[in-house]
Amino acid sequence: MNKRKRIAIIGVGLIGGSMALQLHEKKLSSRLIGVEASREHAEQALEYELVDEFLPLDEAITAAEVVLLAIPVNKMAQLLPQIMDKVTDQIVMDMGSTKSLVIEAIKDHPKRGRFVATHPMWGTEYSGPKSAIRGAFEGKAVIICNAAESDPDALEWVKNMYAKIGMRVVEMEAKAHDLHVAYVSHISHITSFALANTVLEKEKVESAIFEIASAGFESTVRLAKSNPDMWVPIFLQNKDNIIDVLTEHIDQLTKFKESIQSDDPGRLQSLITDANKIKRIIR
Amino acid sequence: MNKRKRIAIIGVGLIGGSMALQLHEKKLSSRLIGVEASREHAEQALEYELVDEFLPLDEAITAAEVVLLAIPVNKMAQLLPQIMDKVTDQIVMDMGSTKSLVIEAIKDHPKRGRFVATHPMWGTEYSGPKSAIRGAFEGKAVIICNAAESDPDALEWVKNMYAKIGMRVVEMEAKAHDLHVAYVSHISHITSFALANTVLEKEKVESAIFEIASAGFESTVRLAKSNPDMWVPIFLQNKDNIIDVLTEHIDQLTKFKESIQSDDPGRLQSLITDANKIKRIIR
Repeated sequence: MNKRKRIAIIGVGLIGGSMALQLHEKKLSSRLIGVEASREHAEQALEYELVDEFLPLDEAITAAEVVLLAIPVNKMAQLLPQIMDKVTDQIVMDMGSTKSLVIEAIKDHPKRGRFVATHPMWGTEYSGPKSAIRGAFEGKAVIICNAAESDPDALEWVKNMYAKIGMRVVEMEAKAHDLHVAYVSHISHITSFALANTVLEKEKVESAIFEIASAGFESTVRLAKSNPDMWVPIFLQNKDNIIDVLTEHIDQLTKFKESIQSDDPGRLQSLITDANKIKRIIR
Repeated sequence: MNKRKRIAIIGVGLIGGSMALQLHEKKLSSRLIGVEASREHAEQALEYELVDEFLPLDEAITAAEVVLLAIPVNKMAQLLPQIMDKVTDQIVMDMGSTKSLVIEAIKDHPKRGRFVATHPMWGTEYSGPKSAIRGAFEGKAVIICNAAESDPDALEWVKNMYAKIGMRVVEMEAKAHDLHVAYVSHISHITSFALANTVLEKEKVESAIFEIASAGFESTVRLAKSNPDMWVPIFLQNKDNIIDVLTEHIDQLTKFKESIQSDDPGRLQSLITDANKIKRIIR
């Protein structure tokens, strides 16, 4: 049983805000301290009572027993070494969507053991504290990377915290993580963005094109509403894996194109029958 | 107010079966007669009480006042002229996802006026009578093509029928329909099929790849469960439009690939900001 802790949340947006709600709800926090670069977001977060107060970064670190980072991954790689410099025995954890670079950034830091690298597999296409929701993360997987590099007490607290929220902990090396998420998360965002642009381009000459759009279209395109400030750094940090999956995906699309172009129902049937095997994974 | 009619449904699968439930529920049918090539589907449809009885095609046409076709679009183009040969004053309507070819197939038929070409914009990734659901179609758009070629009484009955089910009628020429659906329906299915194949290919060497898949992935890939018997003929009948949209979509994906490959955050930001404009269309 974890004792309630004073927790500083760096970045109170969709992820940090939703986590704040869970930390309070699951009685994991005795005090929630926000740190925000955006004054507008800080005001919203107080209005929605996501955190108890906002403090400047240094004061928040000093006041906290746990420091939780929920900021875009480019800022994470910059900020984390500075935070580790100020840490005494706090637990520090991140929630970012890429892992290799952030872990690399503090690999040789004397306080490395205080840091736990995590990635909860939950999000929505919305952003900011106003998008934070209750009950987030529950029933989903959370990945903890390079667990052996974290101090046992820090690792244990973070695992207990996620278990209490109802998440399933999966351990993985950072390199494997970045490959896996390229295939089951990052590529989905790129296909959605590209599909939105495809149809929006067509709308310029066919203005009524969305009049008949249905649930299937919405399902494949909803992630296209996602925030560029979050996703641009993810795509660039996970460049090699994303280039691999994009190359493969374009190849797969080209197979459909060729089969249609050459009027080949047999090949199309076989491509679709292959794709139907996804039923094994998602019901 | 439409008088209840004896309605024959050719093809009692997901679409025909869901329509049967609505016709009964909305008191549009006095009798529902099924026609099915698959004995298994016919037995399931009777078990679920989707229709009152099954009859051979010719008997069903004779017994009916309305003949509704809900079969794959390749079979539609073959079967429709034969059905029109047997029609006296019945109303005949289809519910297929492509329109040019089926309308072309009976363009000069002496009974052309009895036919109304329709495409209700609803479906799921499941198929067969066991997937039929209550309340389907409600609140969605239905497209009626080349309405001027249908007899006024036939057109009026079909429009009233869809209005009673709660659908919004949009009129369009077949050519425009086929272009529009390529962009807001058909391409979504191809991207889902191709994405499923992309990740299933990777699973062959990374067996745990799906362990961490989340809701975003599921959203973009769920249509990959769709039935090839329905979709192969759609892709082939709508070949030219689908090649256009696929070419554009591959171009859009390539822009993402190039921006990532050349580490260009500015261009990525601008591509994603463009895609975010989809918020105007879907909330």
